[in-house]
Amino acid sequence: MSLTSLISTAIQLKVMGIPHSSFEEKLEKMKESKGVRLDTDLTAADLKELVEQYKKVYLEVKGEEFPSDPKKQLQLAMTAVFDSWDSPRAIKYRSINQITGLKGTAVNIQCMVFGNMGNTSGTGVLFTRNPSTGEKKLYGEFLINAQGEDVVAGIRTPEDLDTMKNCMPQAYDELVENCEILERHYKDMMDIEFTVQENRLWMLQCRSGKRTGKGAVKIAVDMVSEGLVDICSAIKMVEPQHLDQLLHPQFENPSAYKDKVVATGLPASPGAAVGQVVFSADDAEEWHAQGKSVILVRTETSPEDVGGMHAAAGILTARGGMTSHAAVVARGWGRCCVSGCSDIHVNDAEKVVVIGDVVISEGEWISLNGSTGEVVLGKQPLSPPALSGDLETFMSWADEIRRIKVMANADTPEDALRARNNGAQGIGLCRTEHMFFASDERLKAVRRMIMAVTTEQRKAALDLLLPYQRSDFEGIFRAMDGFPVTIRLLDPPLHEFLPEGDLEQIVSELTTETGMMEDEVLSRIEKLSEVNPMLGFRGCRLGISYPELTEMQARAIFQAAVSMSNQGVTVLPEIMVPLVGTPQELGHQMTLIRNVAKKVFSEMDVTLSYKVGTMIEIPRAALVADEIAKQAEFFSFGTNDLTQMTFGYSRDDVGKFLPIYLSKGILQSDPFEVLDQKGVGQLIKIATERGRAARPSLKVGICGEHGGEPSSVAFFAEAGLDYVSCSPFRVPIARLAAAQVAV
Amino acid sequence: MSLTSLISTAIQLKVMGIPHSSFEEKLEKMKESKGVRLDTDLTAADLKELVEQYKKVYLEVKGEEFPSDPKKQLQLAMTAVFDSWDSPRAIKYRSINQITGLKGTAVNIQCMVFGNMGNTSGTGVLFTRNPSTGEKKLYGEFLINAQGEDVVAGIRTPEDLDTMKNCMPQAYDELVENCEILERHYKDMMDIEFTVQENRLWMLQCRSGKRTGKGAVKIAVDMVSEGLVDICSAIKMVEPQHLDQLLHPQFENPSAYKDKVVATGLPASPGAAVGQVVFSADDAEEWHAQGKSVILVRTETSPEDVGGMHAAAGILTARGGMTSHAAVVARGWGRCCVSGCSDIHVNDAEKVVVIGDVVISEGEWISLNGSTGEVVLGKQPLSPPALSGDLETFMSWADEIRRIKVMANADTPEDALRARNNGAQGIGLCRTEHMFFASDERLKAVRRMIMAVTTEQRKAALDLLLPYQRSDFEGIFRAMDGFPVTIRLLDPPLHEFLPEGDLEQIVSELTTETGMMEDEVLSRIEKLSEVNPMLGFRGCRLGISYPELTEMQARAIFQAAVSMSNQGVTVLPEIMVPLVGTPQELGHQMTLIRNVAKKVFSEMDVTLSYKVGTMIEIPRAALVADEIAKQAEFFSFGTNDLTQMTFGYSRDDVGKFLPIYLSKGILQSDPFEVLDQKGVGQLIKIATERGRAARPSLKVGICGEHGGEPSSVAFFAEAGLDYVSCSPFRVPIARLAAAQVAV
Repeated sequence: MSLTSLISTAIQLKVMGIPHSSFEEKLEKMKESKGVRLDTDLTAADLKELVEQYKKVYLEVKGEEFPSDPKKQLQLAMTAVFDSWDSPRAIKYRSINQITGLKGTAVNIQCMVFGNMGNTSGTGVLFTRNPSTGEKKLYGEFLINAQGEDVVAGIRTPEDLDTMKNCMPQAYDELVENCEILERHYKDMMDIEFTVQENRLWMLQCRSGKRTGKGAVKIAVDMVSEGLVDICSAIKMVEPQHLDQLLHPQFENPSAYKDKVVATGLPASPGAAVGQVVFSADDAEEWHAQGKSVILVRTETSPEDVGGMHAAAGILTARGGMTSHAAVVARGWGRCCVSGCSDIHVNDAEKVVVIGDVVISEGEWISLNGSTGEVVLGKQPLSPPALSGDLETFMSWADEIRRIKVMANADTPEDALRARNNGAQGIGLCRTEHMFFASDERLKAVRRMIMAVTTEQRKAALDLLLPYQRSDFEGIFRAMDGFPVTIRLLDPPLHEFLPEGDLEQIVSELTTETGMMEDEVLSRIEKLSEVNPMLGFRGCRLGISYPELTEMQARAIFQAAVSMSNQGVTVLPEIMVPLVGTPQELGHQMTLIRNVAKKVFSEMDVTLSYKVGTMIEIPRAALVADEIAKQAEFFSFGTNDLTQMTFGYSRDDVGKFLPIYLSKGILQSDPFEVLDQKGVGQLIKIATERGRAARPSLKVGICGEHGGEPSSVAFFAEAGLDYVSCSPFRVPIARLAAAQVAV
Repeated sequence: MSLTSLISTAIQLKVMGIPHSSFEEKLEKMKESKGVRLDTDLTAADLKELVEQYKKVYLEVKGEEFPSDPKKQLQLAMTAVFDSWDSPRAIKYRSINQITGLKGTAVNIQCMVFGNMGNTSGTGVLFTRNPSTGEKKLYGEFLINAQGEDVVAGIRTPEDLDTMKNCMPQAYDELVENCEILERHYKDMMDIEFTVQENRLWMLQCRSGKRTGKGAVKIAVDMVSEGLVDICSAIKMVEPQHLDQLLHPQFENPSAYKDKVVATGLPASPGAAVGQVVFSADDAEEWHAQGKSVILVRTETSPEDVGGMHAAAGILTARGGMTSHAAVVARGWGRCCVSGCSDIHVNDAEKVVVIGDVVISEGEWISLNGSTGEVVLGKQPLSPPALSGDLETFMSWADEIRRIKVMANADTPEDALRARNNGAQGIGLCRTEHMFFASDERLKAVRRMIMAVTTEQRKAALDLLLPYQRSDFEGIFRAMDGFPVTIRLLDPPLHEFLPEGDLEQIVSELTTETGMMEDEVLSRIEKLSEVNPMLGFRGCRLGISYPELTEMQARAIFQAAVSMSNQGVTVLPEIMVPLVGTPQELGHQMTLIRNVAKKVFSEMDVTLSYKVGTMIEIPRAALVADEIAKQAEFFSFGTNDLTQMTFGYSRDDVGKFLPIYLSKGILQSDPFEVLDQKGVGQLIKIATERGRAARPSLKVGICGEHGGEPSSVAFFAEAGLDYVSCSPFRVPIARLAAAQVAV
């Protein structure tokens, strides 16, 4: 860290506890009284007077003279930097970015150079390539007669690097050459700070540059073709989270909202965001926690805002350039950001933003286009992104390198198609219950099944469901021609299919639908209600209690499989029994399934090969995996439920204490987002080892939401799993994470 | 098995699928037409005719002649016995009695002897000692001119053994001698079947005799003093479940209900039972499953009824002696039973029992005294039993032998005292929340705490609770002078303390109690409600979110400990943090607790030693036990919750499928009653090993309800646990089970 930065950082860090603003105020007053606009317009005499004023501020607050011994000053500045490590915002930043295991920050002390020694001096920051697009062209900002602080703080609006090329061609050429040297050395796109003091170039700082997903992919692909890096290194140059951005929705039709555009700022971080306006980071966090999508609107952001920025779907600032705090942080996280939108006036006190005649209050919906800088009124429709160009090249490298397969969780033929387009190598989880919600007729049939008192009534309702299920399975098998399709039997508690509303409404709706008497309906509902539905009558407990349910589902699967196979589709059905905790449960269901298969194959005069396996989502199943594997042909870890039961956390209720746990450091991350390797991971390892010991050919995968989380995917690959299955949207992320752990 | 028994068993087993009644009907008609009462009154000619009729029955049903080849007959009879192993009632019987791992039944074929060859012949059954009281005196029944079937079936009411002594003195003397020889050989009280054929004694069958708890203890103690067995063998002669009977309640004051006695039968199995009348085994099972206490009333019981008999609190039969099916089975299980109560007339069709003028309908309450044979109207008050006499001697032997300690779960000073009287060596689980329900004032203070919006409001409510908790702890420490008292911090979800009723009632009650506005109360209640409370905001999650709660509880404990210590009581407090899943949670709570301890000790100028440990009740805690043991000074397995989470079974909801699982053999027993050694037990072993590896001095125990279940106690002892803790009532059972595993 240069001394300039050191001191300026020390100031930012409120050395000795005096806020920045107490000094800024004096400076502003001085400029006002002298009638000048820029700091540099002040004379030496003015500055001397200002220093005296600053010293008075110090004296007033601290009750002692400002230390004039330079050594003492240096000491204090260093201490301030060291202490900054434990500031709440630094802790929060590390927590969000999952930076752990470091002991603190380092401080380098260097001689000072000055970019504010007149018109032959200046200062700038640059990226060696465009961090948004990846384009191979220096991308930066420059200010003549200024210090670095002036650029990054976003207070003076900086100029293009071409300004420097024109004013200081020699320094500029040297800078270009240095950039090339640095890229060759670090084999990466660099973020550089430099100063020119009286035409002589000084390189102040150099680090890997933050970039957007799009930028990261293009840079990686370009550097391979430039011969700078090999494919394995390139694979590591793109963070899996980066792909998230590329896979984030874009506006469906940007030309359609043109008349709703109320302002245009800098396209600081690409992508599209739609949300409700909030004016403070705290509100952003709070609203987000309530499940709302928010746009954080600020005059400018500061490190104190990182929590709210992370919680926001998009960020809009009135001030600051493309390298301002808001822009840099947003790009790092792939948040959509429009910065430096000087048309807007933010009134924090009244919680409104004024844009000309338009007044937008807290809670109103706006849309941001981070790729164009447009600020749009209302909720503009979004469309899903797709793979293409550089990304396709890059992903093909990832696929070459990775060992673990990537499948998708998909419940409809449409999902299956999207999954396949995103590179999924099959369906790892098809939740049959989602099909039940697809139409009113289906839901009514499901409710008749649930309300059935006798087996005959239940069978009659199941007969109605059979054709729906069969036709969905046919569509999915067709979309996944040649790839395995893993179908999970009915899993959720039955009361999830009942109508919503208060008891009276539910009863009236059900009596109408089923023709049952009111008290029959009431007693049935009472029987279905549960204290802890997560641990209740669900999963294979349903299929064991009502064997006709499993039989109907198996029949639909096998009939669909045979009919598609007859049409020339290569069908690889894998039937998955949910919530198994004992080998007996699986045995019971397997017997039913195999009997149905035999029957269907004999009726339709075809035999297909298929697999029957089980979810491993109950701790006990992991512990007795050897016994279960004697029957199961595959295991699929349901890490959502496994996490719920291993921790004893109800995902629906964890909001009461998880935020406290995260803020107190009791947990490092939400175990439903990032797999808990020590606890849940231990069960996964135990089950995999014991399962394979009992059945060496056992196929082992995971279909919980962790299947799309990069650090978790790395763990699954290292634990020797055969595949991960995640949402179609996250398939490319899992493909990359799997490749990265392989290199 | 003798041939007599073989053939009769074969008949009972409905050889060739023809029901017993088809033959009995012919026999009854024959007796009627001949005007005789007893089978033996029929002439040889009558019997010949009857055989012809029997053969016709066979021909009608089977469509072929009865096989007259004796070899073929024998073959069929043997097959029937072998097949009986897989009959539903045999499977159910083995399941109830947890008989597993056997391959089938054996069949011995012997020459037949006949007890029905006139007045010098007869048959009988006996126990070598009184199976109810343990008294050392032959106890049995005898019938002149009869076969064994006539005695055990309870159709003819048998006579005393003295009848035999008078009629056949020589055979009787030989029988007495044989009984002594058999007792010396088998070192046990025997159950014997014999027949006298023309004055010659034949011993038919001999096995260990079923007995009551009281009988078992007296027999064991007597046999030690007789020199027949040593103490270690004696310890194995009493089943832990037997003690359950001795510890079952008795009627508070039998003389008080004398005018309510409506009938008196045979005192077939001692103890007292109070329940609602049902008339079928199925109803008994169904009502029991709904949590009702039932008395099963039958004309006579048969092996088909075992399920219902097990579910009933007591059994009342109109027919059958002390060795009838009902009596033998009930004694084996320690069920209260009154048999042969000929005053009652059971009308199954109308579901009433008529006793003279009294008509008792299904669902009405009656009380049974199994020790006197009295049948009493209404619910008579019960009182708890106590240890004394032989039992005390016997238990002192158990205590000498066992290695594992037995503590009790007790929440009040009264419970603590009862636990100590039953031999508990400390309190393994004191649930502080139970104290909260002890009075209206307490509950109101708890609700104020729950409804608090600010920390200040919560602290004010906690200040009100402190004195209550402190005084309860003082009482418990006093009762447990010299023994450890393990106190668990608040565990249940807070909404458990809210008033019952519909939302309107709850809100109105809470607004009155707290003086809060209606909408404040509503919003607070909404925040407290949970989808899966078992996996929600409870356990240490409360104390971490509201540190002031843990601090209050710790303060109450330490203040009580110091004040009792100052009064000369030896206080050994152990504070237990519930629902820990990560070492960080325990660390957080331990810091609070230790700080409070320091403060209290310094305020009161005394220092006491104490332990802080944790429940291991979340699967993850068991998996990371090594890390947790770095801080925890003791582990206590909460096997109830550990079973819930390891299986993914909500104890409140498991009734929907557990009966199906048990009946289909998917589970061998209810894992909440009998510890699941394979799954839950595996976690217990893992945690114990890893915990002790990290801290060799770690104290390890268990405080779930399995602590009083014999097979589970044996597992805990073998797994090397230091103690089990169970309900005060079950402490003697645990003491015995622990001794049995040690011999």
